[in-house]
Amino acid sequence: MPPAISSASFFIGKGGGDLISFGSGQPDLPPPQQIFEAQRRFKTFRYGPVQGEEKLRAALAKEYPGARAEEFVVTNGASEALDLLLRAAATRSGKVLLPKPYYYSYPHNVRLAGMTPKYYRLRDGKIDFDEFEAQAKGCRVALINSPGNPTGSVQDIAVLKKIEAFARRTGTILISDEIYKDLIYERENYPMKGETVCTINSFSKTYAMCGLRVGYVHTKDKDLMAKMVEIKSHTSMNTNVLAQEMAYEALQTPKRHIAQQMKVWRSRRDYLYESMVGLGLDLWKPEGAFYVFPKFKDPTRAMHDLFYRYHMITYNGAWFGDPSRLRFSYALDLAKIAKGMERLEAFLNKEYRRYT
Amino acid sequence: MPPAISSASFFIGKGGGDLISFGSGQPDLPPPQQIFEAQRRFKTFRYGPVQGEEKLRAALAKEYPGARAEEFVVTNGASEALDLLLRAAATRSGKVLLPKPYYYSYPHNVRLAGMTPKYYRLRDGKIDFDEFEAQAKGCRVALINSPGNPTGSVQDIAVLKKIEAFARRTGTILISDEIYKDLIYERENYPMKGETVCTINSFSKTYAMCGLRVGYVHTKDKDLMAKMVEIKSHTSMNTNVLAQEMAYEALQTPKRHIAQQMKVWRSRRDYLYESMVGLGLDLWKPEGAFYVFPKFKDPTRAMHDLFYRYHMITYNGAWFGDPSRLRFSYALDLAKIAKGMERLEAFLNKEYRRYT
Repeated sequence: MPPAISSASFFIGKGGGDLISFGSGQPDLPPPQQIFEAQRRFKTFRYGPVQGEEKLRAALAKEYPGARAEEFVVTNGASEALDLLLRAAATRSGKVLLPKPYYYSYPHNVRLAGMTPKYYRLRDGKIDFDEFEAQAKGCRVALINSPGNPTGSVQDIAVLKKIEAFARRTGTILISDEIYKDLIYERENYPMKGETVCTINSFSKTYAMCGLRVGYVHTKDKDLMAKMVEIKSHTSMNTNVLAQEMAYEALQTPKRHIAQQMKVWRSRRDYLYESMVGLGLDLWKPEGAFYVFPKFKDPTRAMHDLFYRYHMITYNGAWFGDPSRLRFSYALDLAKIAKGMERLEAFLNKEYRRYT
Repeated sequence: MPPAISSASFFIGKGGGDLISFGSGQPDLPPPQQIFEAQRRFKTFRYGPVQGEEKLRAALAKEYPGARAEEFVVTNGASEALDLLLRAAATRSGKVLLPKPYYYSYPHNVRLAGMTPKYYRLRDGKIDFDEFEAQAKGCRVALINSPGNPTGSVQDIAVLKKIEAFARRTGTILISDEIYKDLIYERENYPMKGETVCTINSFSKTYAMCGLRVGYVHTKDKDLMAKMVEIKSHTSMNTNVLAQEMAYEALQTPKRHIAQQMKVWRSRRDYLYESMVGLGLDLWKPEGAFYVFPKFKDPTRAMHDLFYRYHMITYNGAWFGDPSRLRFSYALDLAKIAKGMERLEAFLNKEYRRYT
């Protein structure tokens, strides 16, 4: 069961007042102040272009080397971006290569587009290129997600370049989900390039605008772009014009806004990772996004015990295709993280010792 | 070619300064003032419930006799409402019954959900129940649209009750697209009722909020509702939370706001209809929405001549499944409608006489 459904019905109204949530995948930091001004100023609620406002697409083009406004379609978040892209790329019983573990919606999105998911296994969160290439045989589309959810992993540039070359050589449509591109601790983002590359991004994570639902696809593939715009003209029309104006304003935010927030994210990442290592958990150090993904014996039981006895929300790795782990988001403040780690320590010293 | 694509590429940048558009399907009247206050006030951009804000759904429930908040899902306009509903109802090679003429997206939406469209022919815009019933055989889903686009027709209550009974008797999923429900000149809207009825509506037409993209589905079918919410959790997540707040505020608008706008719509409808009758055109008097649908010899040629020689935008009936007519929207002020009718008269007295 996907967490969007299961967690809602499972967690809501049960936790009591001191519930600490390591569940949510949304930033708790504030959005840039400028978007509130755009919000107040905007007054025109007529239909906009289905592809997205020209002004916003032109501003996005400046963020991608060599890109042009017509290579973007603005969508209802990264979710619609992926849905639209897969519907546009769909062929009857086509196969789509996904990482495993994966963001929990991916396999559903593939099936909803009438295609079949196939998987390449990540090794401690990292892509093994040989495995990727072997599994990609016969796939019309392949997807990578760096920084990754639920892994927090950032892929090595050498591997990303091999994947670019693979896509160029084979003509495979390569979806690069880069929605955490501004949340990388170790280096700058490496934006994937190529004629068949379709980059998905969103304003949700970088600018804390989740509920406003603004995302986009960037691609140089004109046929795919035309198909996406045509499908969207029937399935949702323009993305909310007010939210697009706010997204445009968010893009004007000085980069130091992002840099300042990165300090906060990094300190949380370091604290949480080191705490878990100190508690003897088996996990890798995430280089991006805001998740850690430690191993547990019987994660489903651990998730339930942590919730019912220690009032902590965590997400089951099984929802993401890895039944040996739990996902902890660190989109919450350090004091709460610290309190959560005390509870986790108590859990490990009590219930968990009795697990087989 | 659907007008969302074709009209954009065809019309934009060609018309010059005195272009008169009878093309657009969006109200030119202002939205209620209250929504601007909601716009300024709202400050929380976190993810919302995928099904839609509880507050908005509770307010919607009051608009439908015997309805409850959990029977609604709030969508990115009526477009996503229909897309989501068809995807939730889809069976492999299922058939969906549509009116002909139809809103131009319907057949595309059906195919995008992996199903096949089938048609019942309207007679001068009206449903012939025997024809509807005969064609509905073997269809999993049937759709009605009253008031209709492009017809402007409002269906008789006696016929609507027969269709309700048919749906009850056969278990057919009945989609009732009522997005023009507040634009009826002759009577109150008759909201379709029944266990298998799925009503689609939106804030676009009643409240002139097209670009904000808020629509919804109302249904008592719990399985369909659960499927729609699950699909939406993967394909777009919550509808824009700010737009939902504005939609909630729009619902609080006194009904006299709608009544006042109806006077404007009615005077335009009467003026345009009587002008066209006076010019000898063959059309029925529309009872709802804001379209007239007159017959033309060679409508494609007429549309081009009207555009290039008389600077008037009209939409080709062929885009809506009726190649014998042109659609004129009257979402523009009376002075422009009058000027357009002068041009139409000149066209009819000159070019059009040479048509065969």
